[in-house]
Amino acid sequence: MGPADPGKPSPRPPPHTLLRTERSRPVVKVTVLVGSKSDLEVAEKVRVRLEELHVPCSVHVASAHRTPDKVDRLVRDPETDVFIAMAGLSAALPGAVAARTLKPVIGVPLHRGLGLDSLLSVVQMPPGIPVAAVGLDAAENAALLATAILALKYPELTAELEKYRAKWRDEPASGSPP
Amino acid sequence: MGPADPGKPSPRPPPHTLLRTERSRPVVKVTVLVGSKSDLEVAEKVRVRLEELHVPCSVHVASAHRTPDKVDRLVRDPETDVFIAMAGLSAALPGAVAARTLKPVIGVPLHRGLGLDSLLSVVQMPPGIPVAAVGLDAAENAALLATAILALKYPELTAELEKYRAKWRDEPASGSPP
Amino acid sequence: MGPADPGKPSPRPPPHTLLRTERSRPVVKVTVLVGSKSDLEVAEKVRVRLEELHVPCSVHVASAHRTPDKVDRLVRDPETDVFIAMAGLSAALPGAVAARTLKPVIGVPLHRGLGLDSLLSVVQMPPGIPVAAVGLDAAENAALLATAILALKYPELTAELEKYRAKWRDEPASGSPP
Amino acid sequence: MGPADPGKPSPRPPPHTLLRTERSRPVVKVTVLVGSKSDLEVAEKVRVRLEELHVPCSVHVASAHRTPDKVDRLVRDPETDVFIAMAGLSAALPGAVAARTLKPVIGVPLHRGLGLDSLLSVVQMPPGIPVAAVGLDAAENAALLATAILALKYPELTAELEKYRAKWRDEPASGSPP
Amino acid sequence: MGPADPGKPSPRPPPHTLLRTERSRPVVKVTVLVGSKSDLEVAEKVRVRLEELHVPCSVHVASAHRTPDKVDRLVRDPETDVFIAMAGLSAALPGAVAARTLKPVIGVPLHRGLGLDSLLSVVQMPPGIPVAAVGLDAAENAALLATAILALKYPELTAELEKYRAKWRDEPASGSPP
Amino acid sequence: MGPADPGKPSPRPPPHTLLRTERSRPVVKVTVLVGSKSDLEVAEKVRVRLEELHVPCSVHVASAHRTPDKVDRLVRDPETDVFIAMAGLSAALPGAVAARTLKPVIGVPLHRGLGLDSLLSVVQMPPGIPVAAVGLDAAENAALLATAILALKYPELTAELEKYRAKWRDEPASGSPP
Amino acid sequence: MGPADPGKPSPRPPPHTLLRTERSRPVVKVTVLVGSKSDLEVAEKVRVRLEELHVPCSVHVASAHRTPDKVDRLVRDPETDVFIAMAGLSAALPGAVAARTLKPVIGVPLHRGLGLDSLLSVVQMPPGIPVAAVGLDAAENAALLATAILALKYPELTAELEKYRAKWRDEPASGSPP
Amino acid sequence: MGPADPGKPSPRPPPHTLLRTERSRPVVKVTVLVGSKSDLEVAEKVRVRLEELHVPCSVHVASAHRTPDKVDRLVRDPETDVFIAMAGLSAALPGAVAARTLKPVIGVPLHRGLGLDSLLSVVQMPPGIPVAAVGLDAAENAALLATAILALKYPELTAELEKYRAKWRDEPASGSPP
Repeated sequence: MGPADPGKPSPRPPPHTLLRTERSRPVVKVTVLVGSKSDLEVAEKVRVRLEELHVPCSVHVASAHRTPDKVDRLVRDPETDVFIAMAGLSAALPGAVAARTLKPVIGVPLHRGLGLDSLLSVVQMPPGIPVAAVGLDAAENAALLATAILALKYPELTAELEKYRAKWRDEPASGSPP
Repeated sequence: MGPADPGKPSPRPPPHTLLRTERSRPVVKVTVLVGSKSDLEVAEKVRVRLEELHVPCSVHVASAHRTPDKVDRLVRDPETDVFIAMAGLSAALPGAVAARTLKPVIGVPLHRGLGLDSLLSVVQMPPGIPVAAVGLDAAENAALLATAILALKYPELTAELEKYRAKWRDEPASGSPP
Repeated sequence: MGPADPGKPSPRPPPHTLLRTERSRPVVKVTVLVGSKSDLEVAEKVRVRLEELHVPCSVHVASAHRTPDKVDRLVRDPETDVFIAMAGLSAALPGAVAARTLKPVIGVPLHRGLGLDSLLSVVQMPPGIPVAAVGLDAAENAALLATAILALKYPELTAELEKYRAKWRDEPASGSPP
Repeated sequence: MGPADPGKPSPRPPPHTLLRTERSRPVVKVTVLVGSKSDLEVAEKVRVRLEELHVPCSVHVASAHRTPDKVDRLVRDPETDVFIAMAGLSAALPGAVAARTLKPVIGVPLHRGLGLDSLLSVVQMPPGIPVAAVGLDAAENAALLATAILALKYPELTAELEKYRAKWRDEPASGSPP
Repeated sequence: MGPADPGKPSPRPPPHTLLRTERSRPVVKVTVLVGSKSDLEVAEKVRVRLEELHVPCSVHVASAHRTPDKVDRLVRDPETDVFIAMAGLSAALPGAVAARTLKPVIGVPLHRGLGLDSLLSVVQMPPGIPVAAVGLDAAENAALLATAILALKYPELTAELEKYRAKWRDEPASGSPP
Repeated sequence: MGPADPGKPSPRPPPHTLLRTERSRPVVKVTVLVGSKSDLEVAEKVRVRLEELHVPCSVHVASAHRTPDKVDRLVRDPETDVFIAMAGLSAALPGAVAARTLKPVIGVPLHRGLGLDSLLSVVQMPPGIPVAAVGLDAAENAALLATAILALKYPELTAELEKYRAKWRDEPASGSPP
Repeated sequence: MGPADPGKPSPRPPPHTLLRTERSRPVVKVTVLVGSKSDLEVAEKVRVRLEELHVPCSVHVASAHRTPDKVDRLVRDPETDVFIAMAGLSAALPGAVAARTLKPVIGVPLHRGLGLDSLLSVVQMPPGIPVAAVGLDAAENAALLATAILALKYPELTAELEKYRAKWRDEPASGSPP
Repeated sequence: MGPADPGKPSPRPPPHTLLRTERSRPVVKVTVLVGSKSDLEVAEKVRVRLEELHVPCSVHVASAHRTPDKVDRLVRDPETDVFIAMAGLSAALPGAVAARTLKPVIGVPLHRGLGLDSLLSVVQMPPGIPVAAVGLDAAENAALLATAILALKYPELTAELEKYRAKWRDEPASGSPP
């Protein structure tokens, strides 16, 4: 059966096809949005981890409140399979992205005010607009969750996650393997 | 290019291939785990919504504490693409599932004790074990998020989500379309 | 001088001009937005109180997530001087309205989940997008605050507030005068 | 402008009739009250932002508990259109001001003890005494909200807010434009 | 030594002098203030317990926000030795009373909204205005604390408290003896 | 009328009789208990403030858990009119003292763990054992409340409180006058 | 099982004689203390579960505040190996028992006020006085934990726990096997 | 004491030989598990205190998520009488250990994120899996509780606890005797 058959795994693609196209530039698969430059540091941790997992990623400062058109444009990007949106305080960005796309959106609450504010804002979404919340400042888990989701479509990523877990099991001290 | 090319969308399969195989029995794509029978009511809401979205689903009472072997067996099911784990109080089930699989795991905190207990237990996972948390008792969003994730692999589900959103937009009273 | 001169108070209009125009239909001054029909009950309390204060008001079910175009349209309404947006859970509506207008926006967190979730979502807005938060389910105070704001422009409303306070002082039992 | 001495004139600032009267002394439009000198630092941030928006403002140390007569006197100031009251711990000042005036009162909870204490004290006002709460230490949003309210009466302030938003949209890093 | 000697207990007065004067009307020793009629039920519990302890008491609906003059008048009452102020939500009444008197003020947070809101508002008073907070809806303890304070001045009340404790010890089921 | 008449204030004693007896050693009026030496710093603030108010005070390290006999002995001290007990975490000391005496007990929750832990432990006392809770680390208010209570018995202390308030009103910056 | 006579020691029984002595009356191994009769319902659940596990148990209403002598007497009972203390609000009983004995003390916070109050009071014990906290109203786990502790000394109880777990695994619906 | 070899059983030592066997190496009685190397510092405090109490102990980095087989192996160690499991955030380790053994398990929530997250995760265990929770970062109490439990089986430990308490009573400053 061809790709239309969901019951069968596709053959694994050769390594690295994910990272570049014939036009030799990376295809964005994960788009990370942060509301302000001051949040770029956490976004960078996501990017570094995704790169190590061989997942292409691009990071943008965009705000549903401030630059909704930029959010609209980013959300329509056909190359993006998964969005990661990070915000502190009353963290509306993950929900705003989720309302504009049918693709999976991962929300990362940032610990800016009380912590509980952004955490509840991200996780307690009203019915109809799902956001996949991870923990406060949880850049590592956001990257891993994005990769696990992408691995449904790009099975070669499963091997990346397996390598990650293998290292992670062997180095229990750090919480995140090198 | 064939299925190995991640840069191109696959042609949409004919309707309903997702729901049955040639052997005429549904293939499980989403596996829902609840820790006790008393949580089945919320799980049933997930199942109903998934069915309306034409996503095959099976529901199991299984507990990482109580019946870890059953969890182990369910987690190894090759037909499952996404897991949904629901629990109240110190809600360890989502994390326990996530630690046993590389596939995406959605965690649904159930409002049993303080509410904040299960919510924090599900969302504040340590680095290395990602769980996609939704809100307290958020069966609707768990089903929608699972479908959005599956749609990466089974693009025909995007149309289901589009139909859902269209209805949802037209009937703003309910939070969940019929 | 006309309304463009900020240095001088405008002459007080004759009573009741606020409520109707020459075309004999009420001019909307306060627009109340609720995210779903299930929240209309609290909105109705706002409307009743505003009506008693002789402030024209219209209530709409509109959601930044669900029906952003409707929100956009309502927000552009030139007749509206003050917006009131009410929402539960991760309450993004007040901030979404505030991001689309320069007019004052009052946010009413509704007690749906934990209470603390919508309260923190409404009050802990990031810098740049001010929302005037009132308490959980505080329909009464939302109406009073809207009227106090409008009274800057329509001084005759001050008399309405004075009457309200006079009754309120004399009937300390109820919290809200008839 | 620094803490204004209500008894002394100062030269009128240039553009817009808002900033000076023919009698060549500043007209107070926003009066900021803080309960103690130690809170003046946050009040100063409000003052600076208001000045940039060309909104006259005066800052006073006054406490409903300590110097109620001073609060009474400030509240009766006919030049003030909007009050901003800031306090930490059990933050009674915003409510105390709101109980003494019919004009809009913005409450700024300050993060002194648990944070949640002043936040809840400011936002959870009983019915009848509306306070427009902004977030913890939210000087920026207090100034913007005051300006948005004043813009109903002084429409030229809308242009100030538009300029602010334009800068704010172009410089998403800071959260507050220069 | 006479009453000026703090080192010696005064001789115990004959029973019942506390409750009436020669003019045969009760002298108010404890004044209970509640902000609205809806709070009278809890105040009544205080009154009943105080009566059983033979402590004269009067209950008033008075609000620092609503009827500050009434609060001012009550606070100046020379017959009152101890005040009890009860309020829910952002509970400003205990602090408002404490700011107006040098006599001891007991604050009773009422469980109206989140519970934590009134509790923190009553207990987290800023330095300089002490309030003696008891627990949520703690009418019993408010009455006992008032009596313990009064017993410093009216030593015969110690016997009342002793009787209370004796009953209380013998009837551990109820939390409050008949 | 003699000291048995509660309706009349006793004549004010000459200054300083409170502080020393003929035997020229201070009479303890306020006994402060802290559970461990590490809490002595906050107790010292209480002592300094009480000294400035001319209230004799003694500070003891004593723990209901650790040295219950010492608590028992201190509690039986006939010279003590008011107890102040300070503790962090699960703060049992104020309640333990209150259970052993009929005299007023002021509880000061110390911010050691979450803050909310000691605050709730001190304020949420079960019915029958009243504790007068002040805020987290609120040494100043503990001293003032103790003095206000003592002033019922030693009216000359009212003048001390008046002096305090006068300074406090004139120096609104500090929260505590020198 | 009723209250045992704490005044008499008994020789350690041979294996398997845990449930009865030669005098054919149960030997107390677990002593359950509740602060008031209103808490007996939860204590009864502990007793029933312990009985099913063949662990002798006696239940007493005793309060560290109210009836400290009774607590003292119960705590000295040589037959008791494990104490269970249950309380709501500011739950001092578990700590009070733990301070009086060197034997293990299990604390059960009861959900009376906010829930968080008793939970924090029980679990956040200061160093030196260990309490083994279980969850809010967690009668079942208190009984199981007591049995697990006793099984160190009475190995035959391990078989009881194994039987419990076997049933519990087979009947995942209930959370507690019959 | 270092990590013992959990793979070998040893005969129960005669009374008082708790600390050493004939083979002159310590027998593990308490096994401490931490989820990552970064938590070893708190575990070390437990170890030091246990050593002072003459309780053999071994510390292991093992994670239910990361290295479940290691947890399984450690849990089967016949020499271990009591387990102590420490974790932050969504602290699943104590429950995971408790689900695998019938022996007593002490859970220590570590203050990593909000504090309340790990505290609630450890204490709010579902019925059937008892965990003996101590406070946040409460290494001292974990060691004491483990010793109190062990003293049921090894009565000579009661003397160690008595010595600890004696020192602790005499040195009330520190919270933990040397």
